[in-house]
Amino acid sequence: MLEPCSGPDARPDPSCPVEVTLAALRGRWTALVIGELTRGPRSFTDLAQALPALSDKVLTDRLAQLTAAGVVDRRRTASWPPRVSYTLTERGVALLPVLRAMWDWGRGDRPEA
Amino acid sequence: MLEPCSGPDARPDPSCPVEVTLAALRGRWTALVIGELTRGPRSFTDLAQALPALSDKVLTDRLAQLTAAGVVDRRRTASWPPRVSYTLTERGVALLPVLRAMWDWGRGDRPEA
Repeated sequence: MLEPCSGPDARPDPSCPVEVTLAALRGRWTALVIGELTRGPRSFTDLAQALPALSDKVLTDRLAQLTAAGVVDRRRTASWPPRVSYTLTERGVALLPVLRAMWDWGRGDRPEA
Repeated sequence: MLEPCSGPDARPDPSCPVEVTLAALRGRWTALVIGELTRGPRSFTDLAQALPALSDKVLTDRLAQLTAAGVVDRRRTASWPPRVSYTLTERGVALLPVLRAMWDWGRGDRPEA
């Protein structure tokens, strides 16, 4: 299954699907930003308030990373004043069971309380 | 699902199950080392030959990381000369469907050839 993750020069292939997923989830707080967006569309301010420990810069970086990875969609509403809101894309929703599988595995090394 | 990943001070909790899984898979080549061990127990030399682009230091680091994460077991056989071999633990085998889910998601952003 993982053979194609090694490129022609026996280097990790950045297009390796596992690497793609790891890159989408890279960095502190990334999973938490996704978790927040499972509640529905959120403005930058909503997210900043829900995740007060993130600096604006880190939140901006994480949203850019998730948008580039196709997980998050940045939408500008037609209202006045215009509002930008962030939502999970279909790809982002498809990532939730993967995060669930990662959650379940990560929990497995600790006995149930 | 991800709320408990934020600690009491609204910082990412290192014991967050998703972080545990990400930490186990951290770093280049990690998934490839796991992939190689799905073929069966392997000595350090076997792994080094199968993954020639990894320096001994990187392979040593990855095996130490995976052993600490409970994914890989390091066994010393009773034979003479003693041989050390690496195998996937039960936890490691349980990680394979998670990697498969990550693989499937990572493949999804590219059209089938």
